[in-house]
Amino acid sequence: MSRPSESPIHPEPAEAPASAVVLLSGGLDSTTLLFYVIRRLGVRRVHALSFDYGQKHAREIGAARFQAETAGVEAHPVIDLGLFRELAATGSVLTDPARCVPAFSAVPEDQRRQPPTYVPNRNLILLSLAAAYAEAHGIRDLYYGAQTQDEYGYWDCTGEFVDRVNAVLALNRGASIRVHAPFAGWRKVRELRLGLELGIDYGRTWSCYRGGDRPCGECPACVERSGAFRELGQTDPLGI
Amino acid sequence: MSRPSESPIHPEPAEAPASAVVLLSGGLDSTTLLFYVIRRLGVRRVHALSFDYGQKHAREIGAARFQAETAGVEAHPVIDLGLFRELAATGSVLTDPARCVPAFSAVPEDQRRQPPTYVPNRNLILLSLAAAYAEAHGIRDLYYGAQTQDEYGYWDCTGEFVDRVNAVLALNRGASIRVHAPFAGWRKVRELRLGLELGIDYGRTWSCYRGGDRPCGECPACVERSGAFRELGQTDPLGI
Repeated sequence: MSRPSESPIHPEPAEAPASAVVLLSGGLDSTTLLFYVIRRLGVRRVHALSFDYGQKHAREIGAARFQAETAGVEAHPVIDLGLFRELAATGSVLTDPARCVPAFSAVPEDQRRQPPTYVPNRNLILLSLAAAYAEAHGIRDLYYGAQTQDEYGYWDCTGEFVDRVNAVLALNRGASIRVHAPFAGWRKVRELRLGLELGIDYGRTWSCYRGGDRPCGECPACVERSGAFRELGQTDPLGI
Repeated sequence: MSRPSESPIHPEPAEAPASAVVLLSGGLDSTTLLFYVIRRLGVRRVHALSFDYGQKHAREIGAARFQAETAGVEAHPVIDLGLFRELAATGSVLTDPARCVPAFSAVPEDQRRQPPTYVPNRNLILLSLAAAYAEAHGIRDLYYGAQTQDEYGYWDCTGEFVDRVNAVLALNRGASIRVHAPFAGWRKVRELRLGLELGIDYGRTWSCYRGGDRPCGECPACVERSGAFRELGQTDPLGI
């Protein structure tokens, strides 16, 4: 397979929308997206939306609050998705208290397209909820920080996934909601370069899956993130 | 446009699955579906799934509990979707405390394809959550009681909607979840005939949107339901 192209799968509309919803986890991808939407696209009314779905690394929500305030959003609801624990918590090492997040190097290569850190259907759930929020608030553009990660992949982070979700939402003609995933075809290092240009303080984002006080440095999220900083000849301000 | 065909848009597989998730609201459609899956298709392990999303007619959840027990399901989680109130409650008369559910006759004809009783993106949210539940429990078949109602319609109750949701879920190759909506192309009277054959006690279902102690007889759900009974020359056991 060829290397992912450096051009986005979902080019942005020439004219930026007046308002948008941005899914914000507080990690590198979604924080970069938030600043991209506000500072590069120039969208003026932005609602960031975060979810507490029982992830061990709920510390990312604190990062989301900081970044939403810094970016100057109009609203930042943090939605308690505790029901996820009842529904599907045991489906993922990110939410199952009885299982550990493995080191990236311990994940066999054949599991890297659907690794144990995958949370059952999480992204379709979050997009569905965000689309309901957008519809109820009369907003049509929904930004999603999906990135087909360099070495690690999830079915619900691809451009094709976004296209098919849009095919569902297109049936809702009254609302005209469209999901944009401008980073879907990018490598993480390209996102990072953009974010540094936009002045993002990555020391106030959170990526580590393990929920400790400091990044572990070996879970898949840490490995990918530190790799991107290294590729730019920089050190991650979180000291990974 | 021609009258909806009497054959289902989504024919059932020749062989019934060993296990299934059924979305159960406690109303006429989903109760008929539950008994159809268990008594007609012969699925042995059924998990019914209900949601409390702040609907005024939460009384339907009590009906769902009765029907799930009567049908003999293996499990019946009732999931608190209180977050819906924060997200989008004001988007619908079914959930907004400040607005009344109008009589069917008061809904202008041009609003009947997206009426005020529509709840923003509710069905995609419920299907996404049910798919996560199914995936976490190793179940592949998910039954959804969508019916393109005779006079009233929602974009998220059509066969096309189900087909597009399946196109999204098909990307999740590890889980192979498929949504079935066997009644999508049916008229309500056909469902009712089936349900009566299957011995369903419709006196223990709930359809009225208004949340009173007795059905109001004039909201869209009451009007449709009583019309179906009348068409069969019967009286609704709820006395509508």
